[in-house]
Amino acid sequence: MSRTAAIIGGGVIGAGWAARFLMNGWNVRVFDPSPDAARNIGEVLDNARRSLPGLSDVALPDEGTLSFSATISEAVANADWIQESVPERLATKQQAYCEIQATCPKGAVLASSTSGFKPSELQTSAARPGQIIVCHPFNPVYLLPLVEVVGGPNAEAAIVARAQDILVDLGMKPLLVRNEIDAHIADRLLEAVWREALWLVHDGVATTEEIDDAIRFGFGIRWAQMGLFETYRLAGGETGMAHFIRQFGPALAWPWSKLTDVPDLTDDLVKTIADQSDAQSGMHSIRALERIRDTNLVTVMRGLKGQNWGAGAVLNAHDMRLRSAEVETDFSQLILTLDRTVPLDWTDFNGHMNEARYLEASSKATDRFMELVGCDATYIANGGSYFTAETHIRHLNEAHAGDRLRVKTLLLNGTGKKLHVFNLIYAGDALAATVEQMLLHVSLETRKTSEPSEVIVQTLARIQKAHDNLPRPEGIARTVGQRP
Amino acid sequence: MSRTAAIIGGGVIGAGWAARFLMNGWNVRVFDPSPDAARNIGEVLDNARRSLPGLSDVALPDEGTLSFSATISEAVANADWIQESVPERLATKQQAYCEIQATCPKGAVLASSTSGFKPSELQTSAARPGQIIVCHPFNPVYLLPLVEVVGGPNAEAAIVARAQDILVDLGMKPLLVRNEIDAHIADRLLEAVWREALWLVHDGVATTEEIDDAIRFGFGIRWAQMGLFETYRLAGGETGMAHFIRQFGPALAWPWSKLTDVPDLTDDLVKTIADQSDAQSGMHSIRALERIRDTNLVTVMRGLKGQNWGAGAVLNAHDMRLRSAEVETDFSQLILTLDRTVPLDWTDFNGHMNEARYLEASSKATDRFMELVGCDATYIANGGSYFTAETHIRHLNEAHAGDRLRVKTLLLNGTGKKLHVFNLIYAGDALAATVEQMLLHVSLETRKTSEPSEVIVQTLARIQKAHDNLPRPEGIARTVGQRP
Repeated sequence: MSRTAAIIGGGVIGAGWAARFLMNGWNVRVFDPSPDAARNIGEVLDNARRSLPGLSDVALPDEGTLSFSATISEAVANADWIQESVPERLATKQQAYCEIQATCPKGAVLASSTSGFKPSELQTSAARPGQIIVCHPFNPVYLLPLVEVVGGPNAEAAIVARAQDILVDLGMKPLLVRNEIDAHIADRLLEAVWREALWLVHDGVATTEEIDDAIRFGFGIRWAQMGLFETYRLAGGETGMAHFIRQFGPALAWPWSKLTDVPDLTDDLVKTIADQSDAQSGMHSIRALERIRDTNLVTVMRGLKGQNWGAGAVLNAHDMRLRSAEVETDFSQLILTLDRTVPLDWTDFNGHMNEARYLEASSKATDRFMELVGCDATYIANGGSYFTAETHIRHLNEAHAGDRLRVKTLLLNGTGKKLHVFNLIYAGDALAATVEQMLLHVSLETRKTSEPSEVIVQTLARIQKAHDNLPRPEGIARTVGQRP
Repeated sequence: MSRTAAIIGGGVIGAGWAARFLMNGWNVRVFDPSPDAARNIGEVLDNARRSLPGLSDVALPDEGTLSFSATISEAVANADWIQESVPERLATKQQAYCEIQATCPKGAVLASSTSGFKPSELQTSAARPGQIIVCHPFNPVYLLPLVEVVGGPNAEAAIVARAQDILVDLGMKPLLVRNEIDAHIADRLLEAVWREALWLVHDGVATTEEIDDAIRFGFGIRWAQMGLFETYRLAGGETGMAHFIRQFGPALAWPWSKLTDVPDLTDDLVKTIADQSDAQSGMHSIRALERIRDTNLVTVMRGLKGQNWGAGAVLNAHDMRLRSAEVETDFSQLILTLDRTVPLDWTDFNGHMNEARYLEASSKATDRFMELVGCDATYIANGGSYFTAETHIRHLNEAHAGDRLRVKTLLLNGTGKKLHVFNLIYAGDALAATVEQMLLHVSLETRKTSEPSEVIVQTLARIQKAHDNLPRPEGIARTVGQRP
């Protein structure tokens, strides 16, 4: 059942929302009277299609349908979610809600992307105040998981709960802000940094680039995985958090806290910042810089996936949800053991998927095959597993970032301690590689070979009986350099 | 020529400096009268040995020698670098400089880890004020690259310059703070966030965990790779930075800026924060949480290495410096094509190096072999390269994070378009795997096979002539599952 999101306002944030919904299988209707809206959304969608699918280790749902609506009424009719991202003026937003609520379903989530306003302000004068909540995302919306969800004292609990469920379904991390406050949580922190940074530029202490370097070579790296308090907990060491606060807290009242006034945004200061920013980043076009950013974000978040931590844990949970929706496997044919997109961090200086990533894909496929025959996480936790003893890879076609990658597995031999499989890796429709692997069942305690469980033995026998009837693909039992 | 660093004060920061120097081949003398100093430094060193070597894609220098000195005089005698990390009290620091300068070489760098004091304050009453500078690092010092270098108006230019050179040699990113100011740059930004965060906890708006989540699922991920201004440049989109400031700048003067006072650090507030922090992170011991952090940081920074961006570009440049110091290769024997440590992000659920990483190591080794025969970055930029056609891997022993990994390459055949190599992968002294690879020379334009350059042909012929005389290792030309 495909659901529909209405995107009211198609700037950078609205377009990011559109991409997030579309690529998770929702249909999207956009209302934005600007003549640039369609082009802008197309460009953001291109960025999202380049980066988001490969962030996942399984295939995303088929992309939904994008359409543009001439009126708000048309956009929001029968919508399940309405996301308002119009300019940050309260009257403009309130006027939009008036038009939206005249047509939209009463049970739909009506969420604002506002970075500053409280829900109680947005709800004022609305026909159904309880339907309006804040869902404040972070740019780029299609990649970053955080959404601040704020209902305030007047929102319907059911709307707030449904919003959180849907955001999780979109692969996002809803953070419920329990007490409404101007600018929610993150933007208050950001504003504090922004104000201090403007002073540093204003006073000539540092340029925009120097300030950015002070962030991205230091605490910015820490904050990709642990926040302020968890980091300071570590700085306090074994003496604990209270000790840390007592030690470093007084500095708050020292002279370095004095710059809490707001610098005047004079023409001179604006020009200084814009010029410094040009010197720092002007060698890249905005679109190029966005692609660099997205590749970096995908790389960082995929790294955290490997550690199942922070944003990486959110992504893994999303993959599990997507995978559980997959059709159950038919063991009588080649078994689909991997279905994913080649991510941005899998390519190398030759401009194609690096050879080691073929084995990574094959390894994940074989892991999935192991799981299907009973060697799953529980089995491994109980001390049994398969280790790869030998592998042969043939590269037949190139694969590139963004290609749909599928692996089909043929069981050659699954008797005794041996698990001998042949993985066919397809990039799109082309056979890109074959990977033949011999695994041996081991005891994780002794690290020596051992017999697998009876369930595994029987399941492998059942699959092999079926697979013995399948045609043999080319390339089995080759030596390197052997003539075809 | 091994150099010596004197570490005055062996807390978390001093110990991190000790680890950074030692693992880059410096000898280190520590002065710290605390009875816990040796244990603390040992624990930090354990963390550093676990995480830092694998961050590099080449082998680090042999670790230097650590010793403990009974007096400051003994520690700083003939030292090339003196790092002061005593408690953050001005009189304590000034007293330390008095003792240090009584003995230390006049040309040594005398750097303070202070997060708050200006050099001119530190230099007051010193015998040689111009020798004292600020080098403010970030925890964990052995992993994070940023060091704020501040000389102030009185520092000797030669000391400031030498300090930056040495920091680069240590794999760090010196950021020259051109105008001294309380708390330099980064800690001003951090203090601004810290103050705002304390208010949010104080007012019951959010818990420490909610605030941390607002960071690490959102802007914290962005800041691992681009700072505040570059990020906002993108938020402004094609309309540019000046437009962005004019649009969002006024919010600085809105009500959300009001909380610029400092909350009183009452016992109640300290307890609230400590309790919330326990609820958030108390399930991990400090040491365990440090290991989680370090694994995450290694993973994030290694990801950025793949993109050659930010902290990753710093690491790549450091690898290049380390590699250029390697002894030139003797082509008459097996060629050492890779020498590195297994990094923390290369292991899998079986607790050992994942099979795909063997191919990654072999692939890097073969890249290095290509480079040695003339297929280097310039050659590839001119349109020629080798693509792997076929690979066979035998796994013979497990490798684990922290193992020294060496690859030796035997050239089996390097005639015409073919490059047929046999890589022996050693983990420590044990042969962990063999990887046989057939590569074909290609035109990167047509993506079809083509003849290599004459230089490559001749170099390969020369190597092959020598390698044809070497004994054949076991495992060449095997099929998967073949009996030995």
